[in-house]
Amino acid sequence: MKTLTGRDLAAAIRTQTQAEAASGTQPRLAVVVATADEASLWYVRSIAKAAAAVGIDCDLVDLGPQATPERIGETLARLSADAGVHGVMLQTPLPAGASAQELAAAIDPRKDVDGANPLSLGRLAAGLPAFPPATAAAVMALLDHHGVELAGRRAVVVGRSTVVGKPLAHLLLDRHATVTVCHSRTRDLASVTAQAEVLVAAVGRAGLIGPGHVAPGAVVIDVGTNPTDDGGLTGDVDFAAVAEVAGALTPVPGGVGPVTTALLLRHVARAANLP
Amino acid sequence: MKTLTGRDLAAAIRTQTQAEAASGTQPRLAVVVATADEASLWYVRSIAKAAAAVGIDCDLVDLGPQATPERIGETLARLSADAGVHGVMLQTPLPAGASAQELAAAIDPRKDVDGANPLSLGRLAAGLPAFPPATAAAVMALLDHHGVELAGRRAVVVGRSTVVGKPLAHLLLDRHATVTVCHSRTRDLASVTAQAEVLVAAVGRAGLIGPGHVAPGAVVIDVGTNPTDDGGLTGDVDFAAVAEVAGALTPVPGGVGPVTTALLLRHVARAANLP
Repeated sequence: MKTLTGRDLAAAIRTQTQAEAASGTQPRLAVVVATADEASLWYVRSIAKAAAAVGIDCDLVDLGPQATPERIGETLARLSADAGVHGVMLQTPLPAGASAQELAAAIDPRKDVDGANPLSLGRLAAGLPAFPPATAAAVMALLDHHGVELAGRRAVVVGRSTVVGKPLAHLLLDRHATVTVCHSRTRDLASVTAQAEVLVAAVGRAGLIGPGHVAPGAVVIDVGTNPTDDGGLTGDVDFAAVAEVAGALTPVPGGVGPVTTALLLRHVARAANLP
Repeated sequence: MKTLTGRDLAAAIRTQTQAEAASGTQPRLAVVVATADEASLWYVRSIAKAAAAVGIDCDLVDLGPQATPERIGETLARLSADAGVHGVMLQTPLPAGASAQELAAAIDPRKDVDGANPLSLGRLAAGLPAFPPATAAAVMALLDHHGVELAGRRAVVVGRSTVVGKPLAHLLLDRHATVTVCHSRTRDLASVTAQAEVLVAAVGRAGLIGPGHVAPGAVVIDVGTNPTDDGGLTGDVDFAAVAEVAGALTPVPGGVGPVTTALLLRHVARAANLP
């Protein structure tokens, strides 16, 4: 069994991004936050730190957990119109009554570095240039980095979220995989996932995928990041048990996560230098 | 075996559309054409005739087969800005060098009655209100009309086009089916399609789906419209042979086709009366 680590790949992407950031327009990312959720704020601070490390400016625009959808939308529109800002990101969770999908429509697609605007998803699906969500892009980058062939192979994505499952399905289709999307309403999940040559778990339920869900030799990508009681992280895949069956498997932490952050920042550097 | 005809459903939709068209703003559809392709022109004239029959005005804006992408884009933008036009459609094929997906971005999503703008596809995928492509909507309408259950069932779509396969995958996912998308690069197509409880063929290759592709009792929807030597139409499914295996099957012609035109016009009537 091969462990598909993401740290080396993330480091390589960071090195490349640092060079890109230094060579053209100084890139600036704005992250809009409207929550008091500690995990979310921790994540946003980690992005800011990672940005600084590769020479990307990062503004945290904290509107507070009482922000109205109108206020959030206006802020996204203002940042989209600001020529000094190249990437705009809306952090979730949002206050009750605010829809991330509706609000993200206010992000200029050319600055939509986390692929949150429905237009970005539509362009992706239509095969037009667009920034995919960084998490979905990270899954593809990991597969490519580890030389996993996709054309003609059966890929199964568990999870139909707009931020991971759906865009990932399009990215896999674009690479000529035969793609199945499963979700909470799928009957006999294990019988479907066991047909996957490439299996991606993106649900957010610890240990959802056990050895009975995985075909011998399959490549398994774990997008889940579920908090553990001891303050750590665990994936959607039961790593130890699935490692006995799978041909290759990403760890959590240290798999998709670091690549996601690195790609988000690469998107910012690219956005700063779009023609 | 039940034949899932579309004519009754299409007639019911037309009756409803005629009432909607008569009760609010007089709806107007503009169809932009830039081709000399006879089948395409025939289809556009049939839309105009069908529109007239339900009380919808229809303008054919024929730019000729030499039209530049710029000219087509400007025309779509002008019609989108025209308050007297409620639905805008871009007919394919287009002149060499013109991309339907790129150009359709100029269609106001509120007038995008055939779901051609990538934004419409993205909104559909994100679960936001949008007009789906009429063909994809027709497949769903036929399934509903004939009482086919979707939640938790395995649906397989053969074909990954932006106008049918991809939007249909999202519509089926939204109804809680477990969805697989196959295409020309799928290995052992029959083994994948034979797992479908609901199978949709949307490729454009006559007779592609034979009895060996279909599980006993499956519901099969044939989106294909392939011209025959004698001037008729035939689907992607070998009707006579598959009828021996399937539980239900749409005919071609008389299945998805009439429902598609009826729904396109319903979209126009709805677009004329959007809040």
